[in-house]
Amino acid sequence: MNIGIDVGGMSIKAGIVDNSGKILYKETIPTGARRPMSEIVYDMGVLIDNVIKNSGISPAEISSVGIGIPGACNPNEGKVIRCSNINLADAPVVNEIQKHINVPVFLNNDANVAALAEYNHLGTNAKCLLAVTLGTGVGGGIILDGKIYSGFNGVAAELGHMVINEGGGKCGCGRNGCWEYYASVTGLIRQTKAAMENDKNSLMHLIVSGNIDQVNGKTAFDAAKQGDKTALDVVKTYINHVAVGITNLINIFQPEIIVIGGAICKEGDYLLNPIKEYCLAESYGASFTKTPEIKVASLGNDAGIIGASMLGKSNGVV
Amino acid sequence: MNIGIDVGGMSIKAGIVDNSGKILYKETIPTGARRPMSEIVYDMGVLIDNVIKNSGISPAEISSVGIGIPGACNPNEGKVIRCSNINLADAPVVNEIQKHINVPVFLNNDANVAALAEYNHLGTNAKCLLAVTLGTGVGGGIILDGKIYSGFNGVAAELGHMVINEGGGKCGCGRNGCWEYYASVTGLIRQTKAAMENDKNSLMHLIVSGNIDQVNGKTAFDAAKQGDKTALDVVKTYINHVAVGITNLINIFQPEIIVIGGAICKEGDYLLNPIKEYCLAESYGASFTKTPEIKVASLGNDAGIIGASMLGKSNGVV
Repeated sequence: MNIGIDVGGMSIKAGIVDNSGKILYKETIPTGARRPMSEIVYDMGVLIDNVIKNSGISPAEISSVGIGIPGACNPNEGKVIRCSNINLADAPVVNEIQKHINVPVFLNNDANVAALAEYNHLGTNAKCLLAVTLGTGVGGGIILDGKIYSGFNGVAAELGHMVINEGGGKCGCGRNGCWEYYASVTGLIRQTKAAMENDKNSLMHLIVSGNIDQVNGKTAFDAAKQGDKTALDVVKTYINHVAVGITNLINIFQPEIIVIGGAICKEGDYLLNPIKEYCLAESYGASFTKTPEIKVASLGNDAGIIGASMLGKSNGVV
Repeated sequence: MNIGIDVGGMSIKAGIVDNSGKILYKETIPTGARRPMSEIVYDMGVLIDNVIKNSGISPAEISSVGIGIPGACNPNEGKVIRCSNINLADAPVVNEIQKHINVPVFLNNDANVAALAEYNHLGTNAKCLLAVTLGTGVGGGIILDGKIYSGFNGVAAELGHMVINEGGGKCGCGRNGCWEYYASVTGLIRQTKAAMENDKNSLMHLIVSGNIDQVNGKTAFDAAKQGDKTALDVVKTYINHVAVGITNLINIFQPEIIVIGGAICKEGDYLLNPIKEYCLAESYGASFTKTPEIKVASLGNDAGIIGASMLGKSNGVV
């Protein structure tokens, strides 16, 4: 058994996870993201103590602790490098947690950790799996031979910060025209609002009861399914943006599997089928060799805890 | 010692290469690219016989043969999959060559093989090196842990076929707006000609003696160095196109080293310095962690033979 910790802007979740990836017990505490770093890290330690105590599981049964952080990490040094939403920059998390529990402790970026969870959940032997999360931003994780690939400095797999439109809209990272700018839910909402401004008769206005501030990632999809032309255009253009980036990644990696996550994946085949079609038409090799499998992520909110719990195993802890 | 074979559209080169990567002896024959496949492959075998015989090196000293192909390969099956310029589609090259010489034989794409040569030439232990060749197209090679990464189907690392401009110019691969369309020498020449059409007074017209068909990859660089404004714009825009793609690759891989090859690299720091500057300003992590080293390829035309000769070693042949 291993402990996985999923650090988020609002809450820190910790779970005891068995070797099959099943969460046996979990607890949550508020993050208090702006508190002093030492307090946040200290509370992670307390949370570990608590899940062990309250689950009734013997500490001797815990093989490792893994921690997923929503920011840039140096997994080799066990440190957070940068974390925009939580006061954890430069936090020596691994060292501090090891004071609480005498097992190997590992740290990695949360998108990487979620990718690891999906890889293990699929029970695959794929040499390469890519995970892409369409959310507020576009998160990415690269799994090679069952391990997280995070580059020589720990901050690789920023798949969302691949420019697909030179000189395009300004991304939060400072670049112009990033995939994230177009393929994130934030991007979809921006595109939906712009289309609504241009078509006052679109069904989308009705769906949000005339209040454009209520637009979310479902608005255009819901109206498109009812045949609204403007919404159909928004959805088509958005899906193309997503597929351009996916196809780029296929041409670079030719992974066995690409997993797409984020709430928007509830659209299921309505989202996935046109992406698959686009990739088959546009990706290198699709006309003459095997093509990657593209599927929807299946672990949802638990991916963070489960993936974090697997960091030890993927680093050789038995 | 190993034999490396570099198959090109015009000629097939074979060399005996020592373990340090030095070519001890080499020979060349014409490819006859449109002959029956069996003849081309047979001639590769004869070429191997000849380099051994004519070099005076004992066959017993040869540990492996490696072959670089300018097309899509399946390294696991030892077959060419597709090869636009040479009649080698579906050729079972490894099997056929093994009839000539009783050592392990390996096959891979030529851009991958060139990347392997640069990796070994640098004597690095980098976990990741990317090689990018700016030529007629934009070739790519990914070296991970000293081995070629070619994806589950053998055709990964098509770095040039990453779209950087959705809906942009039509690339030979069928996509619109590929990096190759903008960053290849072919792209540079197109951009140079377009700028010359718009500025009849540009020094570039003088450089090509008024004959726009004479424009090559040096034209804009030569005029820019003499202060021609239009040429300076062409060069600046071209270098930005190159740097957008390099930065994308940094954000995805965070490799220790990126090697840029192709004849245009003769421009040296005039090309390299603005690329480095751009990447430092734009790549993820550059403001808070280590950044990749970007350098010019050093092996030139011999990279094909040398890299091919190293396929055996990188696949575990001692």
